[in-house]
Order: sequence, then C-alpha cells, then structure tokens
Amino acid sequence: MSEQEIEKKKKMSMVVMSGDMDKLFGAFIIANGAAAMGTDVTMFFTFWGLRAIKKDVRTGTTFFGKMLGLMYGGDIMKANPSKFSFLGMGRWMFGKMMGNHNVAKLDELRDLAVTLGVKMYGCQMSMDVMEIPQSAFIDGVQDPVGVGFFIAEAEESGIQLFI
Amino acid sequence: MSEQEIEKKKKMSMVVMSGDMDKLFGAFIIANGAAAMGTDVTMFFTFWGLRAIKKDVRTGTTFFGKMLGLMYGGDIMKANPSKFSFLGMGRWMFGKMMGNHNVAKLDELRDLAVTLGVKMYGCQMSMDVMEIPQSAFIDGVQDPVGVGFFIAEAEESGIQLFI
Amino acid sequence: MSEQEIEKKKKMSMVVMSGDMDKLFGAFIIANGAAAMGTDVTMFFTFWGLRAIKKDVRTGTTFFGKMLGLMYGGDIMKANPSKFSFLGMGRWMFGKMMGNHNVAKLDELRDLAVTLGVKMYGCQMSMDVMEIPQSAFIDGVQDPVGVGFFIAEAEESGIQLFI
Repeated sequence: MSEQEIEKKKKMSMVVMSGDMDKLFGAFIIANGAAAMGTDVTMFFTFWGLRAIKKDVRTGTTFFGKMLGLMYGGDIMKANPSKFSFLGMGRWMFGKMMGNHNVAKLDELRDLAVTLGVKMYGCQMSMDVMEIPQSAFIDGVQDPVGVGFFIAEAEESGIQLFI
Repeated sequence: MSEQEIEKKKKMSMVVMSGDMDKLFGAFIIANGAAAMGTDVTMFFTFWGLRAIKKDVRTGTTFFGKMLGLMYGGDIMKANPSKFSFLGMGRWMFGKMMGNHNVAKLDELRDLAVTLGVKMYGCQMSMDVMEIPQSAFIDGVQDPVGVGFFIAEAEESGIQLFI
Repeated sequence: MSEQEIEKKKKMSMVVMSGDMDKLFGAFIIANGAAAMGTDVTMFFTFWGLRAIKKDVRTGTTFFGKMLGLMYGGDIMKANPSKFSFLGMGRWMFGKMMGNHNVAKLDELRDLAVTLGVKMYGCQMSMDVMEIPQSAFIDGVQDPVGVGFFIAEAEESGIQLFI
C-alpha cells in the first residue's frame, strides 16, 4: 500500500527495553558516541529500561505495583549484568573491571547523555503498567510519549536499535 | 564492493527471536502502532519467537523435538517475562498489572496485528530444527520463508528491529 | 540541529553483544545470507559477543580478568542457548537438533562469514574491560575499533541490528 519513499536524517532512535547493566552500558555508549558526532539521538525507555532514568525513590500504588517497586526498585546503579549476576556480585565485579579501565559509571554515562542533548522519553504505557510516574524520573527526561511518537522518530532516523 | 544507493520505503521489518512476554508485548505494540500509521509491517518469527504464532497444539516428531514441544509448548499465552518468571507467577502478576491498565492480552494484540494487515512469517530453518510445522500456526500466518526473504524486505524498510 | 539527509548503501551493520548460542546463530545466518546477496556486512562484537570471535585460549591478566576468563572462557562452541541451558545439556540438544537438519555448526558459520568477506571487529573498550587481547581472536578479525567507527558504519548502512 505505502510505496512512498522516505528520507533519512542524521538521527538515531533507540528502544531501551532492557534493564541489564551490560545492555545499558551499550545503549549509553552508543548514544553518547553518536551525540558527540553530531547525530540527534532519541532514547525510548520502556519496561525494564525505565529504571535507567529513575531516581532512587520507591514507586507503586497498588499491591502489585508496590511489590514490583520493591523487587525491581532503586536506580540505574542497581542494574545487574545479564549473565553472572550472582546476587549482585557480578555487578560489583564488572564495576571494578570497568573502573580499572577508566570506563565511566552507568549514572555518569546517563548524565553525560543529558548534557550532550540526548532526548530521553519514558513510554507512557509501561509507566502506567509498572506504576512509575514521571516525578520518579531524573531531571532532563522529557514528558512521556506513546508508541506512535517512537515510530515517527524512527521513520526519519538513519539508525534504529532495539536494546 | 556494493556502492549503489538504496531507497527506503514506509515499511518496517522485525526479526522476533525472543519468546519472552515483555519482548513480545513490545514487538506487537510497535507493529500495531506502525500498521495503524500506514506503515507496511513484516514480522519474521524465528527460534523462541515461533511460539508467538503457534496454536496450542503439541509439536515434535523426533525424541528431541517432542521434548522441546513438551518443555516449550503451548501458545503465546505461555510466554513468561524475561525477569521475575518465578514458575509462571511473574506472567500472572504482569498479566494482572496490564489488565488493570486496560492493556490488551498478548493473543489479542497478535490477532489485532493480523487484522491490521501485518505480515507474519515463520523462519523455515528454525521451524525445521524445532520441528514446528506450518499447520501448527494460527490462521493468517504466511508461508514459511528463508533468511534471504528477510534481508530483501529489510533492505527496503525504513525501520528494522531485532527483538 | 542536524537536518542533513543521509544516503543509505547496500550495507548491513550489526552490534553483537550477546554470546548466546541462539542469538549467534541468528547473527551469522543473517550476516552470511546478506553477504551472499552482495551486501557489505560489518559485525561489531562487544561484551559477551567477544567469545564468538575468540580462539580457545585462556585470557585475563588481573584477578577479575582471570576469573572471567575461567567462567566465560573457551570459544564460540561453548555458547549456551538463552533458554534451557541446563549446564550444557541444552547446547548439546540443540546441537543435535540442528545437525539432524543439516544446519552448520556455529564455528563453521563464523568461518564461512570470514570467507564471504564479512568484516568482523572487536570493540576496543570491552576488550580492555574483559581483558581479551586481539591475539586471542581467530584469523580474519580486523583490528579493534571504538564506538565512533560503528556509528559511522551504521549511518551509511541500510540495515542495522543490535543482537
């Protein structure tokens, strides 16, 4: 049906659904690298990814929401690696290994992204489902958006990634 | 070697390799959103993703195939979240939380995708390996295709995602 | 800020962060398929993905690096499926099922990629962090690169995937 050609801009759109330490490092290192090279970057945080833009505050209004806020609470520094989690030991070990090689911490990388002008959005639907309000997010996060906004952004982006 | 320019259309191609509840929600919400905005959407289901387009029938012909059919059987409603699976409790909890916020169920989202004209394909190679025949799929799934078909689709798509 | 249009070539760029058996099958089958169709393919291996281009040699210089080399050592044939790992039993079972259907082994698919001219790169930062030197990689892997190189490649690629 839709045979029209589309134009691509120097722009990158990411869906960040993962909350894993390694995936988040990847997401922010790519985002910051692109932003530093003059590419417009938009990041859409959804589901497990929402914690990456959260302050260290307790969330949840219903029983389930509070339980989730308890089990998956805290902020980006609580992210565990996708492998070798070992009840937090993997996080500590990889943190050490990264520090030894002068890699910035996750929260520093995220704050740098804000400074570099990377646009970050929470996905409204998963914010509702997980009972995480906009007020729980760090400064610099844009107002929540829906999937239509992401698709419009992705359509004019030269690079799109699902992380 | 290949310096020719390519033209991008208002089209989206997804590889859906994951069978996780959260990833499948993401895949179908993005697919349906794009289709509703007039974008052609093609979804290629492979490996764990095949269950998302399966009916609730038993599959497998060899010993291994039957074992897999037993361990990873059922249909899309058996999908567990990638975290907090807890032997099915996570699925129940997230199902409740989504229902509370009027998010459609996974099978409803998938059926809506068929209605919206999203083209869904099983990957022939993983269907063979996992011993899942075309007859095990729901109505509306296209005939199986190989990787070449996906690449050709992706090449003219403005958006490609690996989920 | 950046409103310039970009031109897309018949080219594919992948970030391979996963070290899972199923994801690596997907990555190499897509890469080889695209290369066979005359598409330029570049693969950027990072974090868990680095093992996919490693020889079966022991790595690590510090205590943590050696521990990681022990826990996540070996080569691509040590990759476990993302589900049903069962201490290696899943790898054995899926290996059998794939063999029954004449799917090549992971190392064969990777070596075929080299033969087909797929360009493979290790990510310098994760090589540093995980203490995996270039000398640990198989022949045919290019010199290490940083994130800027990936972004430049992705920007002119018609297809980009994060796996």
